[in-house]
Amino acid sequence: MNHTKIILASQSPRRRELMERTGLDFEIITSEIEEKTTEKQPDKVVQELSYMKALDVLNRIRSQKPSQSVLVVGADTVVSVGGKILGKPQTPEEAFSMISEIQGATHEVYTGVSLLRYQKESGKVAAKVFSECTEVKVYPMTEDEISRYIATGDCMDKAGAYGIQGDFGVYVEKINGDYNNVVGLPVARLYHELKDFME
Amino acid sequence: MNHTKIILASQSPRRRELMERTGLDFEIITSEIEEKTTEKQPDKVVQELSYMKALDVLNRIRSQKPSQSVLVVGADTVVSVGGKILGKPQTPEEAFSMISEIQGATHEVYTGVSLLRYQKESGKVAAKVFSECTEVKVYPMTEDEISRYIATGDCMDKAGAYGIQGDFGVYVEKINGDYNNVVGLPVARLYHELKDFME
Repeated sequence: MNHTKIILASQSPRRRELMERTGLDFEIITSEIEEKTTEKQPDKVVQELSYMKALDVLNRIRSQKPSQSVLVVGADTVVSVGGKILGKPQTPEEAFSMISEIQGATHEVYTGVSLLRYQKESGKVAAKVFSECTEVKVYPMTEDEISRYIATGDCMDKAGAYGIQGDFGVYVEKINGDYNNVVGLPVARLYHELKDFME
Repeated sequence: MNHTKIILASQSPRRRELMERTGLDFEIITSEIEEKTTEKQPDKVVQELSYMKALDVLNRIRSQKPSQSVLVVGADTVVSVGGKILGKPQTPEEAFSMISEIQGATHEVYTGVSLLRYQKESGKVAAKVFSECTEVKVYPMTEDEISRYIATGDCMDKAGAYGIQGDFGVYVEKINGDYNNVVGLPVARLYHELKDFME
């Protein structure tokens, strides 16, 4: 891995903190693509969006004729509840509506990850795309509890309008799967996929 | 809850951080009892030890004739693997041995919680004791990976010799249950039990 520069294509401070746990050196270059997809299945949605983000960043790096091999990690997270996909809320009202849907029930969180590796010597690009699903069971919440949580502002930049790692934690009864996948990056799977992919 | 002083009977900075998510004001008074139990079942062990910690702190507070009602929260966490209970390692060698046992397998983490409430008006003490179990599946680890993790020093003050919230996270494939229960305090269950208990 010594001669490959690793780039995380995400501006999320949570993904950066999780990526640091791999122990790998990396830089951050944020994708500027519009997040649009025609996919309907949550696992396909996050895989496609993570791929678009990684590809956008890789293309910009390649246009600058990099002096070494480059690996770009792209990621995207959505919440799926009752067949509906929830992204980030645009307003506090939308956040209230999203949390009303997930309280007192179990939903799924999907994070898709794309690894795109440009090999300087051969000029070739290799790709690995996967997604992880974690089930999250949320306690019933009163309207007052939902309003108090939304007032913290913690909900606005997060898929499904909550952050499991913050004040919302008191409403999460249990999960089944990788916790960090809910935060935004399945770092254990990523660590192991990277070990295989970089060999 | 206005007139009851809440005390967390734990010196763990992780439990303090989790307790803060309840939004309740509380103070910390650490128990000084020796952690000894004759129980063998992990759920009984953590319930008894959490009760001993909470009772020790409550007794010390009562000996000072408190001017208000007091609620003490005690907690204890162990790892259970293959019928064996793992507490905190005493040496790096013991930590290596513990992680060798949990790698490549699923183990359970039990946290017991005791709520002891002294009501100033009546002079009575009410108790509520419960425990939560979370299954944790750990990826296979090489000896080199175990040694590198132990070298971080992160393992020494934690049951089972690992902290799920730190660098060990890249080895945790999935969990089934409450994540914060593995960190050391099932804060969602605690929040809901407190709501009932304080009514």
